[in-house]
Amino acid sequence: MSADANQDLSKEIVFKDYVTVELVKSSASDSDVIWAARVSTAGENSLDEVGTDASRSEGLINYLARERHGSPFEHTSMTFFISAPIFVFREFMRHRIASYNEESGRYRELRPVFYVPSKERKLVQVGKPGSYSFIDGTDEQYELTVRLIKESCTLAYKNYQEILEAGVAREVARAVLPVTLYSSMYVTMNARALMNFLSLRTSREGSHFPSYPQREIEMVAEKMEAIFEELMPITYGAFQKSGRIAP
Amino acid sequence: MSADANQDLSKEIVFKDYVTVELVKSSASDSDVIWAARVSTAGENSLDEVGTDASRSEGLINYLARERHGSPFEHTSMTFFISAPIFVFREFMRHRIASYNEESGRYRELRPVFYVPSKERKLVQVGKPGSYSFIDGTDEQYELTVRLIKESCTLAYKNYQEILEAGVAREVARAVLPVTLYSSMYVTMNARALMNFLSLRTSREGSHFPSYPQREIEMVAEKMEAIFEELMPITYGAFQKSGRIAP
Amino acid sequence: MSADANQDLSKEIVFKDYVTVELVKSSASDSDVIWAARVSTAGENSLDEVGTDASRSEGLINYLARERHGSPFEHTSMTFFISAPIFVFREFMRHRIASYNEESGRYRELRPVFYVPSKERKLVQVGKPGSYSFIDGTDEQYELTVRLIKESCTLAYKNYQEILEAGVAREVARAVLPVTLYSSMYVTMNARALMNFLSLRTSREGSHFPSYPQREIEMVAEKMEAIFEELMPITYGAFQKSGRIAP
Amino acid sequence: MSADANQDLSKEIVFKDYVTVELVKSSASDSDVIWAARVSTAGENSLDEVGTDASRSEGLINYLARERHGSPFEHTSMTFFISAPIFVFREFMRHRIASYNEESGRYRELRPVFYVPSKERKLVQVGKPGSYSFIDGTDEQYELTVRLIKESCTLAYKNYQEILEAGVAREVARAVLPVTLYSSMYVTMNARALMNFLSLRTSREGSHFPSYPQREIEMVAEKMEAIFEELMPITYGAFQKSGRIAP
Repeated sequence: MSADANQDLSKEIVFKDYVTVELVKSSASDSDVIWAARVSTAGENSLDEVGTDASRSEGLINYLARERHGSPFEHTSMTFFISAPIFVFREFMRHRIASYNEESGRYRELRPVFYVPSKERKLVQVGKPGSYSFIDGTDEQYELTVRLIKESCTLAYKNYQEILEAGVAREVARAVLPVTLYSSMYVTMNARALMNFLSLRTSREGSHFPSYPQREIEMVAEKMEAIFEELMPITYGAFQKSGRIAP
Repeated sequence: MSADANQDLSKEIVFKDYVTVELVKSSASDSDVIWAARVSTAGENSLDEVGTDASRSEGLINYLARERHGSPFEHTSMTFFISAPIFVFREFMRHRIASYNEESGRYRELRPVFYVPSKERKLVQVGKPGSYSFIDGTDEQYELTVRLIKESCTLAYKNYQEILEAGVAREVARAVLPVTLYSSMYVTMNARALMNFLSLRTSREGSHFPSYPQREIEMVAEKMEAIFEELMPITYGAFQKSGRIAP
Repeated sequence: MSADANQDLSKEIVFKDYVTVELVKSSASDSDVIWAARVSTAGENSLDEVGTDASRSEGLINYLARERHGSPFEHTSMTFFISAPIFVFREFMRHRIASYNEESGRYRELRPVFYVPSKERKLVQVGKPGSYSFIDGTDEQYELTVRLIKESCTLAYKNYQEILEAGVAREVARAVLPVTLYSSMYVTMNARALMNFLSLRTSREGSHFPSYPQREIEMVAEKMEAIFEELMPITYGAFQKSGRIAP
Repeated sequence: MSADANQDLSKEIVFKDYVTVELVKSSASDSDVIWAARVSTAGENSLDEVGTDASRSEGLINYLARERHGSPFEHTSMTFFISAPIFVFREFMRHRIASYNEESGRYRELRPVFYVPSKERKLVQVGKPGSYSFIDGTDEQYELTVRLIKESCTLAYKNYQEILEAGVAREVARAVLPVTLYSSMYVTMNARALMNFLSLRTSREGSHFPSYPQREIEMVAEKMEAIFEELMPITYGAFQKSGRIAP
């Protein structure tokens, strides 16, 4: 479907309950960690490690992760395309060791695509600040939540359109749009920054420092984690073994 | 008014057309630039400059700004409290050389305070991508915009309350809230990062590189600029003279 | 002593076995952590915490450090003047979340002040890569080391002078100077970055992640740590309790 | 030659007058700038630009560079191996938006390879602080400089060996070594950070902001610039056209 066709359909409101993460490109492999680490003891001879099989150096990677020698993990680069609600991007962009470009509500008429929770999303928070956990909601809670989100989004987008049609600037009209609106961005990170992101934005048994991320950013993080595991399996294993602490 | 009283009133929807910027604390003076610069030629003797009158060194500060020797401007710190709509914070937090803490929609029930443009806000965008300018809207455009923003916000907040009352978590319910909702944050920056922020987020005659910020973030930037001018008048003058380019 | 007098004496070679750390200025107190953290749950009411007594909020600070909520520790600023050998500055400046200005060998004739280890400095490394420890050297080892360092430095400085006297640029002549030459710098860091620095550049019992810094940068770090403890005693206590991991 | 053979020869002192820069790997092309920029107006349709021919979008890249929209240049990564004297690395590592790993004088016995200026290196500085320029030295100046550098380096390395042979740690012995000693490092940067580096570390006619780098770091920068031009020719052209200012 071309961009123009897409534009024609764009006024039909869409509700989705998932996020999208695609690897756009990468320059990241386990062997990158090896030569970066070896330069400290081998100087220029470390160049011999470029592009070699990293599997025989698993011990070195485990050591670096465990002892928190983080800099050798930085000579890597992964670029992801992410489509997720604005409230997820608000949390994501607090991570400063990364590069971002995002869709703009100033330069573009935004599309009516909104996030609603799926039935699997635990809706009810129990506990107190600092130690919340989430449990399932009832069917009634779920239906009410979805119905009211849809109602709000529908009115907001109708009003957005009406303000635009009156000739007012996009950057003013977008004020009405809710934080559950989807946006698109590219983010580029190195493996060290990504491990820091994963340690904070996923909730896992066995993490040295437990985290309590919002489920929707965790959905993004889980997809990034799967890609990371594929690109750098030994590094990923070391991250797991060392309690999911970014080195 | 105490925090508790504030809480009781919090369900009454408020619409405001201004932003708030307060200087919380600072460690920033023109003389800080002097000793930081002088260490390069004077070593430890530069300590003699700490706390001295910077006015006799105006030429040095102008030179540093003009020739873009930026590092001496970094040994300064300014912390601002800012209350502004979410769409402003979204742009603000793209500035990575800064420290942020913001009100949380996960940990707190958000207050119904929403931004609507004032009558002075130019509403209509003319030109094409890359060289937009803004002109006044008609009274009709203004009234329609304000009416529809208020309508959307009112429904959104009503639905937010209804979802909360059904026992669903704040982090889920807030999905309906629009980006024109006010939030609060602290931001700490040094003078170099602040000059970069000002160069990009204000639109001024005589800027070497013209910028076209959204008016609402410019409203924040103007208030920060006035505080900066008061704290570091010579540095501010040098910034102006050198075409408002961050050194 | 004036700068000029200093300059006259500057050709007499000095050997020192200590480093200098002075707090130039700071904007850093435990209460800064409180309001920065409280904005998440209290919004603008957190402003009431500015400048208050932090001692009643020790539990909050301990919680933030233990659970690694690091951002509230960033709204602080400490500027140190440091005089130490070049090989220490080489390690120090690998810390990127900091601002630096240093004495310049391009813009200034460098003074003949050189570091030699004191008798207390353990000279002999035992163990293997990744788990070295240091033990005392013999008197013979110590005397030989000091004698040879002094001999090298003396010739280097004599040659530096001779190249300068021949009319060659300082930036060329300084090539001969050894990394044990003292330099001076200002560094400005926030408390979070400082805790990261301390966790990596000191070797302490009870650290969650043990570090093996070179003794000379640890001498700098210990002096910075003492100043930090005085400025932010509750935060410092929380850092200690949580295993000296930067939050 | 194997690493071991290298080690055997390593005690023969080598003097060199050049630096080495090799591209280890990269993920950087002009089209990366296009999709990163287009996401602001095209959202997910920008994915269509991935891997396309950037030449038809030269105007967009020129616009981004000229108007200083820097973020689209960040989704790129270039890793260089660099061999250069320590005094060059001291300047290089002041650039904080980069990742570094360097040969270690703590973990390795350093090789006796030292930099001496070539006959082409202008030796004499004329002018005053802030506006220096360099002119050729005489043959006498050149010969004296080279002779004294060699003398100092030779004694320093002899003393380094003698301290090591006495059983003292490498990290102590290296104190005697001069800043003209070669070291090796990997540095990874994105195109935006690289343009900033080039704008400050090269001296070129037509630069909007003239810079006065030390010749030896400029030798490194020139080699990096040639590689950058080859990887991203349109971006490089835009950098040139916009006065060599990093966007």
